[in-house]
Amino acid sequence: MQRVSVSAPGGHYDILIGPGLLDGLDEWLQPLAPTSIAIIADPTVAALYGARATAAARRVARTELVVLEASEGEKTLLTAARVVDRLVAMAADRRTVVVALGGGVVGDIAGFAAAVFMRGIRIVQAPTTLLAQVDSSVGGKTGVNHPAGKNLIGAFHQPVAVVADTTTLRSLPPRELSAGIAEILKHGLIADEAYFATTCADMARLLARDEAALAAAIARSCEVKALVVGRDERESGERALLNFGHTFGHAIEAITGFGTWLHGEAVGCGMCLAADLSRRLGMIEAADCAKVVEAVGAANLPVRIAGLSAAAAMQAMRGDKKAEAGTVRFVLLERIGKAVQRRVPDAPLVETLSAAGYT
Amino acid sequence: MQRVSVSAPGGHYDILIGPGLLDGLDEWLQPLAPTSIAIIADPTVAALYGARATAAARRVARTELVVLEASEGEKTLLTAARVVDRLVAMAADRRTVVVALGGGVVGDIAGFAAAVFMRGIRIVQAPTTLLAQVDSSVGGKTGVNHPAGKNLIGAFHQPVAVVADTTTLRSLPPRELSAGIAEILKHGLIADEAYFATTCADMARLLARDEAALAAAIARSCEVKALVVGRDERESGERALLNFGHTFGHAIEAITGFGTWLHGEAVGCGMCLAADLSRRLGMIEAADCAKVVEAVGAANLPVRIAGLSAAAAMQAMRGDKKAEAGTVRFVLLERIGKAVQRRVPDAPLVETLSAAGYT
Repeated sequence: MQRVSVSAPGGHYDILIGPGLLDGLDEWLQPLAPTSIAIIADPTVAALYGARATAAARRVARTELVVLEASEGEKTLLTAARVVDRLVAMAADRRTVVVALGGGVVGDIAGFAAAVFMRGIRIVQAPTTLLAQVDSSVGGKTGVNHPAGKNLIGAFHQPVAVVADTTTLRSLPPRELSAGIAEILKHGLIADEAYFATTCADMARLLARDEAALAAAIARSCEVKALVVGRDERESGERALLNFGHTFGHAIEAITGFGTWLHGEAVGCGMCLAADLSRRLGMIEAADCAKVVEAVGAANLPVRIAGLSAAAAMQAMRGDKKAEAGTVRFVLLERIGKAVQRRVPDAPLVETLSAAGYT
Repeated sequence: MQRVSVSAPGGHYDILIGPGLLDGLDEWLQPLAPTSIAIIADPTVAALYGARATAAARRVARTELVVLEASEGEKTLLTAARVVDRLVAMAADRRTVVVALGGGVVGDIAGFAAAVFMRGIRIVQAPTTLLAQVDSSVGGKTGVNHPAGKNLIGAFHQPVAVVADTTTLRSLPPRELSAGIAEILKHGLIADEAYFATTCADMARLLARDEAALAAAIARSCEVKALVVGRDERESGERALLNFGHTFGHAIEAITGFGTWLHGEAVGCGMCLAADLSRRLGMIEAADCAKVVEAVGAANLPVRIAGLSAAAAMQAMRGDKKAEAGTVRFVLLERIGKAVQRRVPDAPLVETLSAAGYT
């Protein structure tokens, strides 16, 4: 088992990574002395792992398994309100612990519900997708979507622990595996050139679900993210670098309808667009841009999504919560392994979209 | 103008107290450099003070006045979601400032909306009721009601400033004036015997809206609350003392339907019940209990609300968010000027309810 420690202004916690950790969930719940435990999962994850997680949790306290539809389209305030209703129904109190068992969507909904229930109760993130293990369960961001934007309603709420059982990745659909690799590539691209190179070299092993390669990548990605989050919990500065590929990616998700493309797929394509924009602004060479596109393609992620509306993309990016007073701030590459923030004028942005087949 | 400085783990801010401060609202908004300003008010307050506050805010940035029904019964997640919708519609961004102009309900709803919009944007509390000026705009608690309990959904979100214009108290209905005095009495009872005595001696001046007496009480109440909150933002210990009278009070509000009794009225009656319970447990003398009841009555607050169901009250108190694992923790008086927390067995609790006319 590997352990990554995270310090953030809002809290300190450990990320535990290893095979079969769900069966020993009680080991991590016991020190929390909860009065009761609510495990939140979607129907698929509940069927696969609900019984094992619940059995472990029941060794610690009264436990209920709350099953909810957790597609990106269901990530709404209403769904979070339903989780709160279930917490009320099970007589949850301030010492109840919520366990988010599943992917990033369940983590976001359950995390937000835990953040606002009685103004905040404890949550353990138990991510079962690669994306959630390397990214969304680290850093304390929770939230739900609004018709006007993704994660527009949310809270910062640090987990008390993250339990990443790598064995659960065996049941992950191939598309979701690739979506997780998108974030792994991102962590190398923004902060660690050697890690990016390792990921490219290990791509076949990652896609074949080699457990050692996956565990090493999860641990390194968590370290990179923890380092960045530890320096800047609230995204005023450095944390924003984690949004590399995300401004383009969020726009893709928004204009195709949340759920059409997986978040990681949209980010994969978004990183290709951000690399192209970096090149157009004279920040990186064409060869580096090509490396990004090649890596994204090797991960079986879309490098190009044709036929999207450039006007709709521009509007979505201006309405994105990273926008301020109508200008759009992008995270771009200064080189492979170093990202920076820049306000970008419309002209090169439109060129990037046009070259990528936006109409 | 008086200034009370508040330090809490979640932030530092000033409370400004004085006549006519709303006309100079721009002085406090200017340093925040907002991209836009959303002033949230209910129809009554909007009609009385909306134009003045908006005119001042417009000297700083684009300003919209958002008018919403803000009775205790409308303090729901749906109403908070409507505020978020209005923020989206006005293209609010992370540097937008929300101004809560009104009583505690507007402060709670607007504060919660600001807490969750884009995971938290800045809020200025501009309380226009005595209750909000002495209590609810200090300390960073925000929240909305759930059918199962008051403020069951919420967040800690400190304001960047509190602007308490004492001139607005001239338009306050008499019931609401008394409701504010309930919290003033509470601050003396839990932490400052001399302040309680001063409040009792000044009661006629307070009820006659003597501006000097009111300003002095607001400042002292804010100091007491700020001191307690500064020591304990999250209510694990000392902050809970501010809930003196509230466990009984919340139950009164819950079983009579939110909005039937004003929060301060329910707390006034709740303090009489808590004093009675303190006496039954041998903590204070009958004479001190009588002083509490006399002061509450002198403030034109209910000292007794007959005909309530004791069973419903017990159930409501067990479901209150201060309950843990089925036991109820009460804030009781050790003497006038010193409150403590105690877990209370059912027997004396039932006696207190029965003696107060619960059936």
